[in-house]
Amino acid sequence: MHQEQTEAYAKAMNGDAECAPRETEPRPALANKVFSAEKLLLARMMESLGNPPLDLVLWDGQEIASLANHSTARVLIRDRGALLKLIANPELGFGEMYTADRIEVQGNLVDCLEAIYRAMPRTDHGQIGKILLAPFNGALRNTQQRARRNIHHHYDIGNEFYKLWLDRDMVYTCAYFPDPAMGLEEAQTAKLDYVCRKLRLAPGETVLETGCGWGALALHMAKHYGATMKAYNISKEQIAYARERALAEGLDGRVQFIEDDYRNAGGQFDAFVSVGMLEHVGIDQYHALGKVIDRCLKDTGRGLIHSIGRDRPSPMTPWIERNIFPGACPPSLSQMTQIFEPFGFSVLDVENLRLHYAKTLEHWLERYEANIERVAQMFDPAFVRAWRLYLAGSLAAFRSGDMQLFQVSFNRSGQNRIPWTRQYLYSC
Amino acid sequence: MHQEQTEAYAKAMNGDAECAPRETEPRPALANKVFSAEKLLLARMMESLGNPPLDLVLWDGQEIASLANHSTARVLIRDRGALLKLIANPELGFGEMYTADRIEVQGNLVDCLEAIYRAMPRTDHGQIGKILLAPFNGALRNTQQRARRNIHHHYDIGNEFYKLWLDRDMVYTCAYFPDPAMGLEEAQTAKLDYVCRKLRLAPGETVLETGCGWGALALHMAKHYGATMKAYNISKEQIAYARERALAEGLDGRVQFIEDDYRNAGGQFDAFVSVGMLEHVGIDQYHALGKVIDRCLKDTGRGLIHSIGRDRPSPMTPWIERNIFPGACPPSLSQMTQIFEPFGFSVLDVENLRLHYAKTLEHWLERYEANIERVAQMFDPAFVRAWRLYLAGSLAAFRSGDMQLFQVSFNRSGQNRIPWTRQYLYSC
Repeated sequence: MHQEQTEAYAKAMNGDAECAPRETEPRPALANKVFSAEKLLLARMMESLGNPPLDLVLWDGQEIASLANHSTARVLIRDRGALLKLIANPELGFGEMYTADRIEVQGNLVDCLEAIYRAMPRTDHGQIGKILLAPFNGALRNTQQRARRNIHHHYDIGNEFYKLWLDRDMVYTCAYFPDPAMGLEEAQTAKLDYVCRKLRLAPGETVLETGCGWGALALHMAKHYGATMKAYNISKEQIAYARERALAEGLDGRVQFIEDDYRNAGGQFDAFVSVGMLEHVGIDQYHALGKVIDRCLKDTGRGLIHSIGRDRPSPMTPWIERNIFPGACPPSLSQMTQIFEPFGFSVLDVENLRLHYAKTLEHWLERYEANIERVAQMFDPAFVRAWRLYLAGSLAAFRSGDMQLFQVSFNRSGQNRIPWTRQYLYSC
Repeated sequence: MHQEQTEAYAKAMNGDAECAPRETEPRPALANKVFSAEKLLLARMMESLGNPPLDLVLWDGQEIASLANHSTARVLIRDRGALLKLIANPELGFGEMYTADRIEVQGNLVDCLEAIYRAMPRTDHGQIGKILLAPFNGALRNTQQRARRNIHHHYDIGNEFYKLWLDRDMVYTCAYFPDPAMGLEEAQTAKLDYVCRKLRLAPGETVLETGCGWGALALHMAKHYGATMKAYNISKEQIAYARERALAEGLDGRVQFIEDDYRNAGGQFDAFVSVGMLEHVGIDQYHALGKVIDRCLKDTGRGLIHSIGRDRPSPMTPWIERNIFPGACPPSLSQMTQIFEPFGFSVLDVENLRLHYAKTLEHWLERYEANIERVAQMFDPAFVRAWRLYLAGSLAAFRSGDMQLFQVSFNRSGQNRIPWTRQYLYSC
């Protein structure tokens, strides 16, 4: 598995190897020379990105100073091929060339990426993105087969790898920090509890979970709230891990982990919950998801969907979509309503936990860096850099407001057994 | 003003007077006879409404029992004309004929209307509604001139009338009841505070309010939160009242009430707030509203929109739209996002306060009925019945889930000075 993965990464990340040797040997002067046309194109590219406050250093050693009155970091472009890839498609090229170690960042990587996100003209980003990225985003319908392939790509690269930087319970979604100084383990438990409280789970109730990851939420609901769970996931490794945990904790009688697509879920439940799956569903399948909820939720049932989102419909960052999360697309709120409105579900509460995801990612990135040597033993250098960029870039995206985190609570229209206020969610 | 209003009402409500005399004199047997075809059509109409649990009593005294195993109320149809109007267009006909006292409800009016709302097939309601009601809903763009006419129709019928059943501060929007047993005055004050807390108002900050009613929120913000207000409204009577209050309370230096359309608002503000205006804006003007907010909100600014809403896009009940709130259309969440997403505003919090509006309406209806004799001195019988139906029908709509109440908090994308959790909103 790891071998297959690392080869795929190496191939995807390094591109045409012959045009981009690392500059270790002296080269003929002409090949090394930076042409003024290249510098002009680079300046235009920086302008199109809103001139982020970055100094650029080219392979011949010359430096192009930030046009802002400060500089957040220095970006080293190590060769002509990297420069041309960057100019041709900055959003894709940066990731590819960073991963291949042909672009390096001197200074804080997260700050550098946040500066890029913040400088980028938002409207154009959305508009241009929609046109440029149509082939990569949403065009490919997440059929059950493709969904399986997509999920396999990310989640089946080895539980041991995820254990290096996730919390003890392997919760791979935004945590909830009632106090930002809280540790990650505590904040993930707080998130599980927060979700259960938002759903108003009562002992003996049945819950349908779609996209259950390594099973932490399902096990938590069964163990601490007395729920009977049916939890779906199409990641082989995650399901195997979740089943083992259920057995070990003696919860296998009340938690059923099913390796199947959410679209095949059946039965009648008191609650529906999905934490961190919607990003992978694809907007065109929201109606199908709504149908599943409508089919499975009792009249008195409550639902909660927790998902990465956007302030407006936008395609996924292409490098992430191509290399990290194939088929993924975080929705805007208007897109999320396509799950609820056709079936007349009533949205009760939407909470944006964006900064909690930034905080979660701070913890993950810190743990990742602390375990970087072990990661390097498991994967090749391209993988190590790709995942650093993915974690740092996600942190920057949440900090800068490029990404949101929505928790949406809902129930059936006209159901009046709802809490009078939200005070019950807060420890008073 | 009142005379003009009552004449308009009488005309609108009574329809063709000659075809519908009140049955006080004995009439020839044939004219009184109920034809079996009429009963068949009535049965079909009831079926299309989902057979609400109501007994029907026709003008010849015969009773058609509820098809459900219980009956919530008895509906008396006093003449053939009323029956035909009802059959031809139940949603419009019921209101018109009830107002004209040609349909009467025996039993609890609110329960009767709630039973009708709950029985109605939701999907069909939306689908059929969209087609049937297109001429009445949204087709007429709320230009500044039309908006003025629409608002005049409802809000300029006399402050004395509204004083009879609103709270002391004349807050004509959903109150917030931290405790459902709370009185109306206290709950309206709690709502004003809740809105201020959601906006995190600090002393000395500037606020743009659009659709300020009789000025209660603007005065509250200035008096209790030290804000400097610019508050817009196109209702002549409301603005006059608000200005008087500002003068009387010595707040005229810090609260500017402007009789003008929200689309003409200018300046730079720390906060934007609009409570109960959006229902009148019209979906096609949401982009214009978003533009106003984008133009007027500082980079660090916060916004809150409080509006009646729907679980899915639906036209306004036609009788209400025609007789009570011309030009009004409460949005679904997906429709509301049209204000935010084009401008990249970041939605932080959506709270559905539906049951709080039901509770508010309980208070209004109770006060209305307690003052019914004074209302009858001010207006004609058609008006008295129309407003009873409007208040009772709104209460039923919120109870049954036909209407929602959304409070949406937002700020500019990427603005990180946001509360860490929502705990600060709750008294702990």
